[in-house]
Amino acid sequence: MAYELYYWDGLQGRGEFVRLALEDAGAPYIDVARETKKSGYGTDAMMKVLNSKTEPHIPFAPPFLKDGELIVPHVANILLYLGPKLKLAPKDEGLRHVAHGLQLTIADFVAEVHDTHHPLATDLYYEDQKDAAKIRTRNFLDKRVPKFMNYFERVLKQNPHGDTQMIGNTTTYVDLSIFQIVDGLHYAFPRAMKKFGALYPRVAAIHDAALQRPNIAAYVDSERRIPFNESGIFRHYPELDQDA
Amino acid sequence: MAYELYYWDGLQGRGEFVRLALEDAGAPYIDVARETKKSGYGTDAMMKVLNSKTEPHIPFAPPFLKDGELIVPHVANILLYLGPKLKLAPKDEGLRHVAHGLQLTIADFVAEVHDTHHPLATDLYYEDQKDAAKIRTRNFLDKRVPKFMNYFERVLKQNPHGDTQMIGNTTTYVDLSIFQIVDGLHYAFPRAMKKFGALYPRVAAIHDAALQRPNIAAYVDSERRIPFNESGIFRHYPELDQDA
Repeated sequence: MAYELYYWDGLQGRGEFVRLALEDAGAPYIDVARETKKSGYGTDAMMKVLNSKTEPHIPFAPPFLKDGELIVPHVANILLYLGPKLKLAPKDEGLRHVAHGLQLTIADFVAEVHDTHHPLATDLYYEDQKDAAKIRTRNFLDKRVPKFMNYFERVLKQNPHGDTQMIGNTTTYVDLSIFQIVDGLHYAFPRAMKKFGALYPRVAAIHDAALQRPNIAAYVDSERRIPFNESGIFRHYPELDQDA
Repeated sequence: MAYELYYWDGLQGRGEFVRLALEDAGAPYIDVARETKKSGYGTDAMMKVLNSKTEPHIPFAPPFLKDGELIVPHVANILLYLGPKLKLAPKDEGLRHVAHGLQLTIADFVAEVHDTHHPLATDLYYEDQKDAAKIRTRNFLDKRVPKFMNYFERVLKQNPHGDTQMIGNTTTYVDLSIFQIVDGLHYAFPRAMKKFGALYPRVAAIHDAALQRPNIAAYVDSERRIPFNESGIFRHYPELDQDA
């Protein structure tokens, strides 16, 4: 049976981290909100789960995955669940917790990316918090990106199995998520990212290696890959970008 | 062998969610940074792990747990790992993902609590972002607290096993974490919390029930429980509080 991925239509957002793993593994899945209402799916079907008064395990927000009756919410949790099934997780139980820890650090980074354009309130428009966004983004680019990226460089450098994957000796969902955050940063902050490859060569190489994987290459060229846009996590507002 | 919990000395912070589970279970643990340097522990021992150039699985930040050679970072990941060992997790594998999803929602809430006093930058003083903090806190109290707490009320109401625990029919680490966020909100925002019990009776009851557990009652009365203070996540700045 196909997995059901529930996420907002029209943006990559947090759902994209799950899509990349499913696509890389060639796993059958339904991107529920993007299907037609006539087929029994669509955004209405997602809202029905979110607003259910009887479902025993309601999620707080998209994305969530449905596998049969089980609802698994939160990106990192979904990847923890799917990883072994898609052969994109370490085999060792302890290492799975290490991979999950890396994914949770990526989740924290993604939340900080979101807050660059929404530092004061999620439900206010960007235009109404632009001054605060400029301060927060400057701090993000000057301090937070180096802090996270230097950490990921160290993780790669100290991997006893080599620096071509984030953990162990095989590609995992963590590598695909690193691809996504680097890709998103290039979209959102092209000026600030100009020296990225020189500063963080190992992380940049993980990004490039993902694009060499046939299923990922096919996916990013397909219509299933929604282009980055200003509804997503990574938004290109030129006034927030700055030279590296 | 005792678990080793690594977290900053002098504050409850994110480490407290792990302490509550360990204390409730009566599990042996060493609160590493709070031990003396002479004993081989202390903050230096924590920094040594964080700055290690040889450790294969370095954490991004505290808290992290060491169990033998394994290092597990991130609160929700630590509780996922410890839950079954401490008998504070559901027995069913699927339900463990549901419990973990709830814990990740709590983690998101905790990050939003932190950002009420640090909306622009983690490494700037509160005093240098007070105006932004006022805007963000107002939005947090008016919109975000109700959004999260109404969700937790629904989770309790829709639990097929009854509304006296967040998941399944036994107390889990999720209930102890709910205790902690409600306790923290009472400390940080006493005015805004005045109607909390009337608005969110089931969530308030989870808080009160935790205090009836002998090991939690003994812990919160002990010197091991660091008092809330303005170095932690939940900070009492009267100028940010407002009437309910």
